[in-house]
Amino acid sequence: MVMTDEDAALAANDAYYRAFRTSDFSAMSELWAEDGISCIHPGWTVLMGRQAVLDSYRAILANPNQERVDHRQDMVIASADDARVFCIEVIEGAAMVLAATNWFRRIDGNWRLIHHQASPIAGLMPDLNAEAPSRRLN
Amino acid sequence: MVMTDEDAALAANDAYYRAFRTSDFSAMSELWAEDGISCIHPGWTVLMGRQAVLDSYRAILANPNQERVDHRQDMVIASADDARVFCIEVIEGAAMVLAATNWFRRIDGNWRLIHHQASPIAGLMPDLNAEAPSRRLN
Repeated sequence: MVMTDEDAALAANDAYYRAFRTSDFSAMSELWAEDGISCIHPGWTVLMGRQAVLDSYRAILANPNQERVDHRQDMVIASADDARVFCIEVIEGAAMVLAATNWFRRIDGNWRLIHHQASPIAGLMPDLNAEAPSRRLN
Repeated sequence: MVMTDEDAALAANDAYYRAFRTSDFSAMSELWAEDGISCIHPGWTVLMGRQAVLDSYRAILANPNQERVDHRQDMVIASADDARVFCIEVIEGAAMVLAATNWFRRIDGNWRLIHHQASPIAGLMPDLNAEAPSRRLN
């Protein structure tokens, strides 16, 4: 069994939310690439570069009041050494869901995160129990 | 004078907002790549694929009440055939600014849009007259 690029990107996406859920800064740090990274947290302007991005995660993961973040309906677009995963983030306790993009790049054989952006979804709550129409689009 | 990849991506970003401002669906359509495209409008879930993405722009550009969208503080990360431009979108008439990502890929020598996402910026209005700290980060 060979893991497809799509499967590998979806696994990397799972690892991102696992690091978040377990407040594992070391895992989060390893997941992010060394260079050329960017991050737009909900309500924030862009952070560019490893120092700024990881500082933000250090603060978020150290926050004892940080809500649990679940992800649903993962979908992936893979092309050469890039794969972007889209999912819906459900923030526990907040009546809010977010549309998230997690962009991975294969670097030395590992899928590393190069960009994250999460935007609030307005209006009707999407049907979170629905399967994504298609998890893959090449 | 040779245009750098960063300059070319910034020019493509200008072209995106020009197409928006002039409601030029044809220009918008040419700017987007043929395959593997994705778009998250403010408050929306992700749209994937050319049909869904361009249908959304057709509707937006045809709306006579569509507010003017300006962009400020463009910054770019370029790497091989990809360049992502970050900017602040200022929506005329709305007391709202957005953090936007416009992701371009060089395809047959042209920088085409493969992903757009815009997220509301919360809290304090950024100083829109300030220059971006650095327009380039490689």
